[in-house]
Amino acid sequence: MSETSPGGPSAGAGTPKPPMRDALVAAAFRLFLERGYEQTTVDDIVALAGVGRRSFFRYFPSKEDVVFPDHERCLAEMTEFLKSGPPQDDPVARVCDAARLVLRMYAENPTFSVQRYRLTKRVPGLRAYELSVVWRYERALADHLRTRLTDRRDGTLHADVIAAAVVAAHNNALRSWLRADGEGDADAFVDRALDYVRRTFGAAAGPAARTEEGEDVVVLVARRGVPMWRVVKEIESVWAD
Amino acid sequence: MSETSPGGPSAGAGTPKPPMRDALVAAAFRLFLERGYEQTTVDDIVALAGVGRRSFFRYFPSKEDVVFPDHERCLAEMTEFLKSGPPQDDPVARVCDAARLVLRMYAENPTFSVQRYRLTKRVPGLRAYELSVVWRYERALADHLRTRLTDRRDGTLHADVIAAAVVAAHNNALRSWLRADGEGDADAFVDRALDYVRRTFGAAAGPAARTEEGEDVVVLVARRGVPMWRVVKEIESVWAD
Repeated sequence: MSETSPGGPSAGAGTPKPPMRDALVAAAFRLFLERGYEQTTVDDIVALAGVGRRSFFRYFPSKEDVVFPDHERCLAEMTEFLKSGPPQDDPVARVCDAARLVLRMYAENPTFSVQRYRLTKRVPGLRAYELSVVWRYERALADHLRTRLTDRRDGTLHADVIAAAVVAAHNNALRSWLRADGEGDADAFVDRALDYVRRTFGAAAGPAARTEEGEDVVVLVARRGVPMWRVVKEIESVWAD
Repeated sequence: MSETSPGGPSAGAGTPKPPMRDALVAAAFRLFLERGYEQTTVDDIVALAGVGRRSFFRYFPSKEDVVFPDHERCLAEMTEFLKSGPPQDDPVARVCDAARLVLRMYAENPTFSVQRYRLTKRVPGLRAYELSVVWRYERALADHLRTRLTDRRDGTLHADVIAAAVVAAHNNALRSWLRADGEGDADAFVDRALDYVRRTFGAAAGPAARTEEGEDVVVLVARRGVPMWRVVKEIESVWAD
């Protein structure tokens, strides 16, 4: 089966996973590709994997879930990563690095990721599933930013907007890489995209924009094209306290 | 029925709508609130509205669609609005104004919008539906920005990120207003939120942003005690050319 298998989603993953789970994913994708997603039932999948229905539902709540077998793990990793950062970390840099965990999950297995991308584009139900997963990542980033920006006026607004920008940048990079059949350097795509977000929000993002340990020096770096009023506003925001 | 009716979604809308459509929405919401969304069938809705099943499906593809009766119209209005702008318009300002159309739809009928907000929070299927609608708004904004930023390096990336930021800001404002039971000034919420997006991306978004090469960067170092006017003067002296 290895020649037609998409390789399974866990190749390269750090933690070992039950072989049965991998076998179910591999069987499911083989059938999805051969007959189409809608034409494949859970019964077909378990028959090919050689296990019972109950085994399937032990690992996956529904047929949709077998298409995205690693998001729960990745969401848990992201939450852990966000919690574990030192408090003086630049919050925008932190959420950008958290988004890289998602890209890494895709990049671990390019063939599988590209196949799933094509499948998801064709099946509206999977697209809806994916949107709800993306929304959960975005909430995780926004929740983290909210805790870090509480002392800022409009902190929750800024948190929501920055989280959405990070997710959009990540997804733009991920799509570019998937459309290139997963052949380019995924990290290069996402570095470039997240760099734009960091440049845009970095200075406005919080304590890091001020000075180390509150010394009485303010350093402002601005592009010449930026209108004067915006520069003044930016200075005012750090001058205040 | 007017006392228990949520008022219907079209009160205040500019274009007249078929009364039967409104009657179906009013009947649906009355039942959703009385018995719950899952416990209400399309048959229940048409029975209360006094019409046949076929009439329901003429207006709404599914039970979910009756919960969001105005998004299709609003999406069409948004697309039209984006197309109709003069080419020299600031693209970021334009997509911000486009997002205001969505807020206006909600603000036209606060009672209905607040009821739906509470309903959507309780029903995962409706939440998924809403995510797919939000995604369509975001795509409409991003598509417009892509056409306007084509000559910019990384134009599609910038378009995607700005569109996501606009949608996140809009949704943050909308949620704040809905959580306040739709009683505050919806425009004030959204003005403040979109103002943040415009300040963040405004300067970087138009033709003036000729800074990709990185030459036109000004670095200012100042002590915090220095009076604001002196800092501004200093910047002006380097900003001039």
